[in-house]
Formats: sequence, C-alpha cells, structure tokens
Amino acid sequence: MSSPVYPTSGALPAQSQHQDHGLAATQAPRIAIEAVTPSLDQGRFATKAIVNETVVVKATIFADGHDVLAAAICWHDDEGQQQRAPMSQIEPLGLDVWEGSFTPLRVGRHGFIIEAWWDVYATYHYELAKKHQAGVPIGLELEEGRQLVEQTAERSEGALYKSLADLLEQFRLAQNDADRVALLLDDITTRLMHEADTRPHLTRSDALYPLEVERLKARFASWYELFPRSETDDPNRHGTFKDVHRRLPLIRDMGFDVLYFPPIHPVGRAYRKGPNNSLEAGPNDPGSPYAIGSEEGGHEAIHPELGTREDFRELVRVAADHGLEIALDFAIQCSPDHPWLKEHPGWFSWRPDGSIRYAENPPKKYQDIVNVDFYAEEAIPSLWSELRNVVQGWVDEGVKIFRVDNPHTKPLPFWEWLIADIRQRDPDVIFLAEAFTRPAMMLRLGKLGFTQSYTYFTWRHTKAALTEYFTQLNESPLRDGYRPNFFVNTPDINPYFLQSSGRAGFLIRAALATMGSGLWGMYSGFELCEGAPVPGKEEYLDSEKYQIRLRDYSAPGNIIYEIAQLNRIRRENPALHSHLGLTFHAVHNDRLLLFAKRTELSDEAILVAVNLDPFEPQEGAFELPMALFELPDEAALHVEDLMSGRQWTWHGKWQSMRLDPSVMPFAIWRLRPVH
Amino acid sequence: MSSPVYPTSGALPAQSQHQDHGLAATQAPRIAIEAVTPSLDQGRFATKAIVNETVVVKATIFADGHDVLAAAICWHDDEGQQQRAPMSQIEPLGLDVWEGSFTPLRVGRHGFIIEAWWDVYATYHYELAKKHQAGVPIGLELEEGRQLVEQTAERSEGALYKSLADLLEQFRLAQNDADRVALLLDDITTRLMHEADTRPHLTRSDALYPLEVERLKARFASWYELFPRSETDDPNRHGTFKDVHRRLPLIRDMGFDVLYFPPIHPVGRAYRKGPNNSLEAGPNDPGSPYAIGSEEGGHEAIHPELGTREDFRELVRVAADHGLEIALDFAIQCSPDHPWLKEHPGWFSWRPDGSIRYAENPPKKYQDIVNVDFYAEEAIPSLWSELRNVVQGWVDEGVKIFRVDNPHTKPLPFWEWLIADIRQRDPDVIFLAEAFTRPAMMLRLGKLGFTQSYTYFTWRHTKAALTEYFTQLNESPLRDGYRPNFFVNTPDINPYFLQSSGRAGFLIRAALATMGSGLWGMYSGFELCEGAPVPGKEEYLDSEKYQIRLRDYSAPGNIIYEIAQLNRIRRENPALHSHLGLTFHAVHNDRLLLFAKRTELSDEAILVAVNLDPFEPQEGAFELPMALFELPDEAALHVEDLMSGRQWTWHGKWQSMRLDPSVMPFAIWRLRPVH
Repeated sequence: MSSPVYPTSGALPAQSQHQDHGLAATQAPRIAIEAVTPSLDQGRFATKAIVNETVVVKATIFADGHDVLAAAICWHDDEGQQQRAPMSQIEPLGLDVWEGSFTPLRVGRHGFIIEAWWDVYATYHYELAKKHQAGVPIGLELEEGRQLVEQTAERSEGALYKSLADLLEQFRLAQNDADRVALLLDDITTRLMHEADTRPHLTRSDALYPLEVERLKARFASWYELFPRSETDDPNRHGTFKDVHRRLPLIRDMGFDVLYFPPIHPVGRAYRKGPNNSLEAGPNDPGSPYAIGSEEGGHEAIHPELGTREDFRELVRVAADHGLEIALDFAIQCSPDHPWLKEHPGWFSWRPDGSIRYAENPPKKYQDIVNVDFYAEEAIPSLWSELRNVVQGWVDEGVKIFRVDNPHTKPLPFWEWLIADIRQRDPDVIFLAEAFTRPAMMLRLGKLGFTQSYTYFTWRHTKAALTEYFTQLNESPLRDGYRPNFFVNTPDINPYFLQSSGRAGFLIRAALATMGSGLWGMYSGFELCEGAPVPGKEEYLDSEKYQIRLRDYSAPGNIIYEIAQLNRIRRENPALHSHLGLTFHAVHNDRLLLFAKRTELSDEAILVAVNLDPFEPQEGAFELPMALFELPDEAALHVEDLMSGRQWTWHGKWQSMRLDPSVMPFAIWRLRPVH
Repeated sequence: MSSPVYPTSGALPAQSQHQDHGLAATQAPRIAIEAVTPSLDQGRFATKAIVNETVVVKATIFADGHDVLAAAICWHDDEGQQQRAPMSQIEPLGLDVWEGSFTPLRVGRHGFIIEAWWDVYATYHYELAKKHQAGVPIGLELEEGRQLVEQTAERSEGALYKSLADLLEQFRLAQNDADRVALLLDDITTRLMHEADTRPHLTRSDALYPLEVERLKARFASWYELFPRSETDDPNRHGTFKDVHRRLPLIRDMGFDVLYFPPIHPVGRAYRKGPNNSLEAGPNDPGSPYAIGSEEGGHEAIHPELGTREDFRELVRVAADHGLEIALDFAIQCSPDHPWLKEHPGWFSWRPDGSIRYAENPPKKYQDIVNVDFYAEEAIPSLWSELRNVVQGWVDEGVKIFRVDNPHTKPLPFWEWLIADIRQRDPDVIFLAEAFTRPAMMLRLGKLGFTQSYTYFTWRHTKAALTEYFTQLNESPLRDGYRPNFFVNTPDINPYFLQSSGRAGFLIRAALATMGSGLWGMYSGFELCEGAPVPGKEEYLDSEKYQIRLRDYSAPGNIIYEIAQLNRIRRENPALHSHLGLTFHAVHNDRLLLFAKRTELSDEAILVAVNLDPFEPQEGAFELPMALFELPDEAALHVEDLMSGRQWTWHGKWQSMRLDPSVMPFAIWRLRPVH
C-alpha cells in the first residue's frame, strides 16, 4: 500500500497557504438563480409595468443533483409591503426556466427578488412514488417518511402541529404499506409539510429587481399638440387659453386624451426670431416659445398674452371635463432675457470677453437661446433644486404629464434624480423624452425613468425598416425599458414622406402609428394633411414655431373622421393599448405590411394590413396568423372589419388582399376562431 | 404678468417633502458605461482568457451633449499591479461602442474596470478646428484656448510645466491667428494637455470584470485516455504504471499532449462489479476504478497493483519528457470499503435501519458506490477541506490537470471555492468538467471556474445540429464562460453513430473534433475503430470499466496515421487552437459541412469540408469564404490541401467538391489571398 500524499507529503505547501477550510463556501448560496426577467442591467434600473396588469417573472433556477426545488417571487410595493407569489418550472424542463407572476395594485416603485430552496418533502414524495410504482421494497422509505413528518411536527405549533400529529396517528394505525404510502403521498400531507417547511438552502437572487409601476396612460394614450397662441380667428390677435376651450370638443371627438402645449412661458425679446426662423423679428412677431424667459418671468411663469394663471387653471379643469389631460413642455433653456441670468449668473457659462455662451453648432449660432451649466460651481445644487421646483410647481397646478425637450443634452444623473424625486411624491406624473439621438442614449433615458419617448418611427417607411424597428421595440432590452410614442409629425418634423404623399400618405402614417403603438401623437395640421415644406428641408413652411397660424379644421380632404375611427378602434381593443404583443405575418408584396396584435388574456387578435404605397393599389396573398390561435392551417377565422363593421369568415390560412390608397390604404380586422 | 407658481403657490407640498436638493445627484457618475464585454453576469463570474493573448474589451460609452469623451481600460494582474490601456470609439460611431485591448502576461486571476471622462481639450480642439474651417471669427476661441493651457500649466509641475510654459510663450510671440491656431491644434499640444488632464467627470464601470487567465493548454490540447491496468500483454496480469512507459512514444507520435487516466486509487471490494457491469465479480475481476477506496486507502492513495508512489512519480516525469502531461480523475464517490466510512461516518447519509444511503436511480441501485453528504453537520467544513487537500496532494505530485467526474451532482459553491483555492496557489492547474447535463448547469460550471468541459458534441451528427451547436459555442454567453473539449468517445459513451459507421465514421468524427475545437479527446480503442456495443446501448461490450482489455495497436484498418496528421495540422495552425473564430459557409448538399477557422491576426484561414455520410460519396457546389478576406466574389485564393500537401489556386467564389468516404471523408484546406 502506498502512503497517502496528504498529510505526510513533503511537497505540501506551508499550512498558512491554505488556512481556508471552506467554511465560508459551505454557507454560500447552493442554488443558481440566473437570467431573471424582467430586468435591466441586472437590477440597476427599473423595468416598466402598468398598475393592475400582471407581471410575469422568469428565471433560470437549478442546483446540483436531482432533488426537487421550490421557488417564489418575493415582491413589495412602494409602501414596502411584502408579498410572495409561487413559481413553477415550465416546459421544456431541460431549460430549468421557472415562471411566476404577480399584479401590482398601486402606482409607484415596486421591486422583487427571487427565492429558491430545497423542497425536501417534494423530493421524498417523488422518490416514494417512483419506487412504489417500480414495485421495489419500500419499508425503509416509509419509515423515513414517518420520521420526516415527526421531525416537522416537533418544530411546529398550533393547528399545524395538531394536523401533523393527527397524520402521525393515522400512520401508526394504518393497516398496511399501501395505506401508509397513500397517506404520505396525499395532497393534504404535502400541503401541511410545505406549510411547515424550513426552506433549507434558501437562496436569494443576487439583485433586487426594481419595477416602475405607472398608470395606463403611461403606455396607452393619444396625444394632440397645438400652439394655444394660434387658437385665434384673427392673425393679428394672439390666441389665449380661453380660446382653446372651443377646440376641446373637436379634439375629444377625434379620440385624443392628452392635449400638449409647447412652452407657455414668457417669450424672450433679445435676438427674437421672425417668421421662418429669420434673424430679424418684426415688432408683432411672437417669437419662438422655446426662447423662454423675459422680464415677465421664467419657467415658473405664464406668457401674459396667453392669459392669467387662473385662466390656465380653468383650462386644465375644463379640459379634464372633456377627458383631456394637459401636458406641458419642460425645456431647460433660456432666452437672454430670462430672469435667471441676472439672479443667478453663476448658473451660466461666460466667455473671456464677458459675453454669455449661447447654443451653437458651428457655423450655426442660436443667439436667442442660452443654456445653463449644470456643473458650474454655483449651480450645484441650487440650479438642480430650482429646476425640480419648477416641475413641482406645475405638478401642483394639476399638470401630470411633461414632454421634456432634448433631455439627452442634460446630465443623465439629473434626470434620474428629478424623475424619482417628483414621482416619489406623485407617482402619476408622466415624462415623455423628446430625444432624437443615438440608440443607446434613447434607451438609457427610459432606464433612468422617462415614461415614454419619441422614436425613429417618423423615418421608417419601408416594409423592411418598419419590420425591423417594431421587432426591436418588442424585444429586450427595449421592451423592458423604453415605451415608444409614435408621433406622426411635430412642429420640428415635417416628414419628407408626407410632403409628397397626398392624403393617402397621412392615412398610412396614422394607421401605422395608431396600430403600432399604444402611444401616438399628432401635431395640429396633420388632420388637414398639411405638408408644405421649407424647400428641401424637413421643416414646415411658415412654421408655427415662429408665427401664429390659423387653420380651417373643416377644410375638404381632412382625415378627421378616419382619425376618430382609429382612436375608437384603439379604445375598444386592449391589444392596441401597447406596442408589445406585435407579430409580423407573411404577405407576398413588398409594399404591403401585415402585423397582428394580441394580449395574452384574449382569444381575439387584431390584424392590421397597410399599403405602404400612397399612390398605387397593391395586392398580394397573405398568411392568417393561425399559429397565434394554435390552429391548423386549414382552420377558419371569424373576421370583423373594424373600419367598416362588416363581418365574414376566412377559411384556410392563405388569403389575398387588395388595398387601394385612393379609397383606404389600410385594413384593420378583428380575428376570432370559429367555434 | 402672472404670479409664479413657486414659491407662492398654496398647493406646494410641505417643504419637508422635498428636502433633497439634488446634491447627491450632482456627484453621481455623469457618463453611462454599458454592455461591457467580455463579461459574465455583469462581473459576477470571470470570463476566460489565455496568457499572452490579447483581450479585446468593448463597452457602450456615452454622456449628455456633444462634448468629446475619453476612455480607458484599467486592468490588474493576480499580483494587483494596475495598468491602463486606451479605448477609442469604433465604427459606426452612432452606436457609441468603444474598444481597447490589453495582453495579460501572467497566468492567474486578472480583472478590469472601464474608466471614462470628459476630454476637455479634445472638445476644444474639435470646435476650434471646425470654426477655423468654417472661416468664422475665432479671436475669442483663441483666448479661451490660451486660458485653458495657462490654467493647465498652473497646476502642472516639472517637465510638463516647462513644456506648457514654453507653449504659452510661443503663443504670446505668435505673429497672427493662423500661427496661434496651428499651435493650439498641434499634436504636441494635444499630447501635453492630455498628459496634464484632470479627467473631469471621471466615471468607472459599475462592476469590476474578472478574467481567468490560463495557460494555452486550457484551450488547446489533445487528450488521450487509457486505463493503465490494461497496459499488459497478459489478460491475467494487471497492467502497471511501468507498463505505460512503452506506450508513451506511440501516443506522442499520434500528436497527443495530455494523457488521462481514470481513477488510480485502490478499488473497493464490497459489491464489486464484474464484466459488463454484472453484479457478481469473480475473484480476479478488477472492478470499476470509480468504486474508490479500500483498506489500502482512499482518494489520496494509489491502487497497489498499479505500482508505488515512486512509480507514479517516475511516470509523470517520463511522460513529461515525451511532451505528455498526466491528467487524473477526481471522482468524489466512495466504495463501501473507503476508509472515510469508518473514519468519518458523519460525512455520509445513514438510513433509519443503520445502513448507508448508496447511489440509486429507482429502480436501479448502485450499491458499489456511496456518496458523501456535503451538508451533513459533521461534514462542514472538514469534508470540504479534506477534498481540497486530496486535490492539493496530487498537485504537489506534479499533476496539473484534473478531469472531474460528475461535478453537477456536487454543490456549486464547493467547486467555486475549491478551484479558486487550488488555482490561487498554482494557477496552472486545469479542471475539465465531466458534466453531461442541462445547458444552464453546463455553462454555470464553466462560470464557476472549470477550465473546460465535456460537451454535447458526441450526439451532434447532422449538418443542422452541428451548425447550431458550433455556432452557440461561438456566441455569448458560452464563448465567454465555456470551453468545449470534444471527446469522440469515452469509456461511458460508445456513440450509436460509430457502432455502424465503419472506419469512415471514425475519420468523420475525428475531423470534426480536431478541427471544431482547440480541445479534443479520445479514449483508446477509437484509433482501432472499436465500436462493438452492448446491444441497443451506448455502452461498449466488455467495457474496460469492469475488465482488463488488451489491444493490438497495429491492427489493420486503424486510423493512427490520420489522427497523427490531424494533430500535426492542429499544431501548425493557430486558427485551430480554439473553437472560436469559426464560421459556416454555404455548400449545396445537406450531407456536406463546410466551415472556416481564422484568427484575427492571420491573413490565412483554414477551410474544413466534411462528408457527414460515412457510406456514400457526396458532392456539391460550395462558396469560398471571400468575405473573411474582404475579397470580391471573383477573387482568387491560394489553396494548400493540408492532408496531402498539394497546392493550387481557386478562381472565383463558387467551387465544387466531391468527398468519398471510402478514400477520405474530409478535406482541410489552408486558404490565402493571391497577391
């Protein structure tokens, strides 16, 4: 016999080199909990959820050996109250994926962790059943079961103790092994043993996964944008808040529920821009509302020509009576006349000649706008808290929705703090990020707390581009951290496509926006198919940013009826209350786009077909989404055309369509299996 | 003028509700650092690297606004010595991805973080150059530049101060603005300003990303497995370590560099298995070497019939002289005769009748094997440290490679601790996980520290299955945490494919394994095309696990020459030293598989074609990987057939091949652009 290597071997390293006898390792978590969803950056940021809607949580959970595990979601709401929801392993079992769910009932910050532990009795139950079925002797196994129950009874109290003691007594009195097996495998026994479980090897997920729970309008809303100053019947008279009242029924009847105004604050005079962004403004030119601040006040004030604070409050009230929530613009920039320049010169950057640094993109200069310097010595933290106070002030006026101008040019930690700070007091507040920038930043703003965001939708026109973009929005990480608000146009964006598409193009974009996302937005004029550009640019001619514009909302060729129909269809179909749950389906024509929307809870689906060509009819064979209903190819589907109300049945998976843009460039069908 | 909402508004929340004025937020990291690679679970586990090979690090880095950023990798080796490597933004710039690299020069645990900061002078440089080009007045900009340099000089010392002071003097003496611009844009100025940079808004990645740096054999090695007891010329005489000597030149000449033995410890007598896993062993049956432990010792001891400890030491030495490194088996299981059962009964599970719990998979029982209970009260931590001491003991004998039996049935934290503990003293030690289990566990073992792993390769035979599997291995997270060792067979696995494929099948599998991964392994008999099974099972008939087997290694039909060629080709071509860098290419025949291997540093690629059908010749058109060389479709490639040594030129992307399994079912071509 050879001598053992250890401990006699001379080559053994000095004892001091391995003083770690593994004690800490024996206490380390035994179970692996991986790939938790929903999550963003392993719990660093909150994922997005809607109050009263189920959150489905998944994780990969496993451990050494073959013992049975148990797992649960442990979640809390914004008051810290903890609850548990069970998880169970889903098919295919080989992937070790577990799933559970819970439903947050309050708006505000929530969080969850995952717990997993050794399910001792389930393991015993499994093995006893298997051996019993195999017909091998199980006397020893029965005694082990009895001891398990006995030990559990010993550490239990009250009703549980009594039930377990009863069970042991029944076991003692049992006539034969078959009765004993039946007792130990019984559902009641299993339930009692679980109730008394000490959860050995309890392991918690490495991270706590936060969840921002918001009201439904965070994900489902229809925005209408207008300049209150244009709500006048005389181009020489500045429109007022009072003038907006008469538009409210029309906007409501089109189906909108958010009414958004560009900045309503005093407009600066210095370097004021004239019509079409000209450098010289006439004495009656109103200037850009984004040049914020004058002798009459700054971000906290109202432009006097719009009316009084009381006028604003009344408008908020009356709009609410019409089902319209007012959204304001939060644009952190100042005209050179802003009071802050005098009161807080240390909040700005000054140049060696004593002039202030204004916005520029060489060689372009934007002298009507100066930016604050968030990290100037005197700005920390007084500028930060003042900006928070500005927002809080408007929240206190009843404004719960803010469209934030260019958030990507302000510090990321500023937004994370400001949004959390405001929402901590009023979790109903919604922030829309107006960021048209690079993809990583777009998502990051959502992670930091922005409820929703402007998107690249405006520049996606082809079947390939739309398919790729809608798909990305439905996948992680975007699906967890970014809610798209599909604006079909804005005062800054007169899309090239619409400049030449005619009325059909406006219908195409309206259909894509309203059906593609739960959130869409429209800037006034779209319903009149306005599209005259500054030649060669994506700008509107005679842009409302620099002048008052009157419109005739009953002008012929308008699409007000169609927009009202689209918004009605959205309201009536929960599958359209989100950009998620979207799948693309085959259609044999590159100008035809076909996608379905479906919620997990419904046995219906909405199928949307759009002819992307505003000029020519397009036709093609297409595939009904039988797989969504787990139906065979030859099944039948009941169809309702939601624009016309007509109903019929489609038999078989392959059908064909023709969409004529001169009539209606899209179709919206509600599908239901025929029973 | 309306009154400001704040601070006069009555609706303002009590001051106590927003006492947070944002001071903490102003100190928070300003720059976003996301999507760092290589990483596993956001730094929780170490990714895998090889000493002296470049580690490429990527991250998405961005911040608010348009200022220029700078970033660096800050890395350290296992002695904690820190170094920096610069990062730069890569195309397309819109994705904000930055890249840098470093080369670890030591084996052992390394780590890195990413740092990013505001590059003030680069921002100034960019804007000055842009305005200068645009021809706008820049007097003010020049003065700002002078002040930047001046302020930097004021906080500098020594040579740096002197250089900056010289620069200021040159600036003062400059005759005109053109000279001043040239001075400020000069490379030397930029370098000096960077050197003196205070790195404002310095942000560090949230996590430290550990990296396990191993020797090349961790990723590139050819394993040969044999049972030393079979190295005898007489079936009635137990082979010994001394007998193994005569095989060393043959194994070396086949091109192997790791020689792996199943357990070499005393074999238990109780419930010893006879031939073909029969329950009754005859008096001369050697038993399974996996039934470890007898009166003669346990895991630290050597089976007396194999020889003495000195014999083992000599074999390790002589094998090393042949370029062969000995790998041992670490199987944590005991025969009922193992000394631990008497010395440490508390390390095992005992049943109510006083019997020990043995391994079973109902209704199957494995009475020759009992398992330790890692979490038994008396096992914590003495069992854990004893197991560590066993491994350390063999490390001290010069064994640096361990094949670990069934690690997935032992606690995960045990492995994480044991491997780190052993490698902390000797980072050259390599652990191969013999886990054939579910995918999440396979990867987790790699994350926990296993150098390499057995794989599903053995069961992947079709073009679709091989393509999917090799692709997965090349993608995250597997590429970062899991190194596959493609064993073509093992004593436990006589693959169904080889049972009926004939010699061609063995060549097919050898080609796939040797070309597919840097790591491959073979259990003796494969080179003789042995494949006789226990009927209907994936087991060898007369398995060497239960009996001594003699072989004639010069038997006709062997593939020793071909294996030697394959191993030679592997050695000579760095692209074959890894499973990474593999891409599939089109070939118009579902029985033909075509893939290329390439290292980033080389202008050559290895193209491997395999006929997966061992019976019929297959032919088809195939696509040369012109894209790998960034060549147009009509380019020419120089080709060397690495099995035959023949050379020629292929003109144009589409070629055709025919592979006859009765001659050679695969081809290996080295491709090089024709210059």
